[in-house]
Amino acid sequence: MTAKKNLHFRKVAIIGVGLIGGSLALAMREQGLVTEVVGVGRGVENLQTAVDLGIIDSYTTDVREGVRDADLVFLAVPVLSIAKVIETAAADLKPGAIVTDGGSVKETVLLEVKKVLPAGIHFIAGHPIAGTEFSGAAAAFATLYQGKKCILTPDADTDACALAAVRTIWESVGSIVTEMDPKTHDAILGAVSHLPHVIAYALVNTVDGTEAGDMAAIDYSGGGFKDFTRIASSSPDMWKDICLMNKTAIVDVIEGFQAELEILKGHIKDGNAEGLIKDFGRAKKVRDTIKN
Amino acid sequence: MTAKKNLHFRKVAIIGVGLIGGSLALAMREQGLVTEVVGVGRGVENLQTAVDLGIIDSYTTDVREGVRDADLVFLAVPVLSIAKVIETAAADLKPGAIVTDGGSVKETVLLEVKKVLPAGIHFIAGHPIAGTEFSGAAAAFATLYQGKKCILTPDADTDACALAAVRTIWESVGSIVTEMDPKTHDAILGAVSHLPHVIAYALVNTVDGTEAGDMAAIDYSGGGFKDFTRIASSSPDMWKDICLMNKTAIVDVIEGFQAELEILKGHIKDGNAEGLIKDFGRAKKVRDTIKN
Repeated sequence: MTAKKNLHFRKVAIIGVGLIGGSLALAMREQGLVTEVVGVGRGVENLQTAVDLGIIDSYTTDVREGVRDADLVFLAVPVLSIAKVIETAAADLKPGAIVTDGGSVKETVLLEVKKVLPAGIHFIAGHPIAGTEFSGAAAAFATLYQGKKCILTPDADTDACALAAVRTIWESVGSIVTEMDPKTHDAILGAVSHLPHVIAYALVNTVDGTEAGDMAAIDYSGGGFKDFTRIASSSPDMWKDICLMNKTAIVDVIEGFQAELEILKGHIKDGNAEGLIKDFGRAKKVRDTIKN
Repeated sequence: MTAKKNLHFRKVAIIGVGLIGGSLALAMREQGLVTEVVGVGRGVENLQTAVDLGIIDSYTTDVREGVRDADLVFLAVPVLSIAKVIETAAADLKPGAIVTDGGSVKETVLLEVKKVLPAGIHFIAGHPIAGTEFSGAAAAFATLYQGKKCILTPDADTDACALAAVRTIWESVGSIVTEMDPKTHDAILGAVSHLPHVIAYALVNTVDGTEAGDMAAIDYSGGGFKDFTRIASSSPDMWKDICLMNKTAIVDVIEGFQAELEILKGHIKDGNAEGLIKDFGRAKKVRDTIKN
C-alpha cells in the first residue's frame, strides 16, 4: 500500500456537504489524505455546521470559486446535477484535477459528463454503497464507509492513474472497492436499491388507499410495516432523478419483479401450498445468506 | 377498572410457548392474573426452557392433558392449526372455559373453529399486533404487548362476558384493544402485514435472479435492502398458512398493489417527472405520519 502512503491532496472540494460528502471529508482528514477541504453548497446554515464540526475548513456557495485550485473534487449531489455542476465549474477546474462522484446511477451520468468535461480533467465515476436514514452535515461521521462496498465504473477513456488514486482514497477510508462497467452497476443497483424504493412507495400508496369499514389500514401497521416502508420516506425529488436516469434498468427489474409477484399471487389464488413453500423457501434461503 | 382487579384465572393453558404465548404468560403473571400456567407444545427442550425461565409452571406435549381444568386457553399456534387443536382438545375443555387465540387471520379461522367448538366453551378471536424477529420461549418478555394494538373480532355469537374478560387481559398487559369484525381485520392485516411479506419474498426472488455480467446483484445489497427484506426470512410454512387462510383479502390487496406499481412504472417509462414527484410524495407524506 505505498500508493496509500504517498497519496495526498493539498485541496479537496466537496460539492454537497451532507452525509455522503461530509463523511468522506472527515474520513480523508482522519487518514491524513488532505490539507484543506472546501465545502460547496446552497444552504449556508448546513455549510456553517460543517465548519463548526470540523468537516470542512471553509465554504462557498459558488461552485466556480469552490473548485478553484482543488486537486480533487467530490460531487455528492443528485444524479441529475452531476454533469450540470461540472459544466458550471468547467472553466475553473485546475488542469489535471480529479473529479469523482457518489451518485447511484452511472451510465447516463457518464454520458452526460463526457459532453461537458474539459480536456485534461479526469472524471472517475464512483458509488459508495453506504448511508443512513439521516442527512445533512450533522449526520456525517468518519467511519461511514468502513467495511462498505464502493463501486467504480471506469471505461475505455478512464485515466488509469486517476482511477488508482480514487481507488486508494476509498480503500484508505475503509471501503471494499470493486470495478465494473457502468451498465452492470446500473442493473445491480436497479435491483438491490432502486426497485425496493419504487416498491416501498407503491406499497405505502396501496395501504393508504385501503379502508375496511370505517377503519384505515395504515393505523394498524406494526413494527414490520414501519421497517419495511422506512425507505418510502426518502426524498421524492432525489428518487425521481434516479428513476429517470436509470430508466431502462429499473423498468426491466420492475418487470422481473412483476413476474415473480404474479407467480406468488397465482399460488395463493390456486391454494397451491407446495408452490408457496417452494417459492417462499427460495427467498428465505437467499435472504438468510445476507448478514444482518 | 374494577373488572381488571377482579379478573383472575386459577389455571391458564398456553398452547405454543414461543414469543407470543410465552410473553402473554409472563405478562399475566406479572399482573397477578393467574395462579398456575401450563405450557403445551411439541418441543420438550423449548418447554423446559420456559419452565427454567419462569414462564410456565409445568408442561405437557399432550393437548388434552394440558387444557384439563384450565379456565383460559391461549392458542399461539399457526392459523391452520387453531381449529385442529380445539377439535383435539374438545372433550377435555372445562365447561365455561374461555379459549382465545393470537392468529393473524380471523374470518376463516372463526368459521373452522365454530365447526368444532363444544357447547359451553367460549371462543374469543384475537390478534395482538406485536412481535420481534426472534422466536421461541427464550425470546419471550413480559413487556412485549405494552403500548401495542390488540384486535378482537367478536361476532353475533360471541359471549359478552368472555369477550370482556379477554379484553381485560390484553388491557392489563398494556395493550390498546380494538374490536372489529373478522372481515375488516383480515382486509387490514392483509394490507399492512400479509402483503409486505409476499412482496418481500417476491423481491428477494427477483434480485436472486438478477445477474449482470458475472456479478450477482445480491452481493451488492446495502443496509436498505437488508432491512427491507428482513421479513423474507420469516417461516415459509407459517406464511403459506396465512396466505391460504386469508386468500381473498390478500389477492385483493396484491391486485391493488399491482395497480399502484404499474402507475409508477408508467411514470418512469414515460419520463414523467411530475407524476413521480406526485406519487412518491404521496407515499412519503403517509409514511412520515408513522412514528419510528
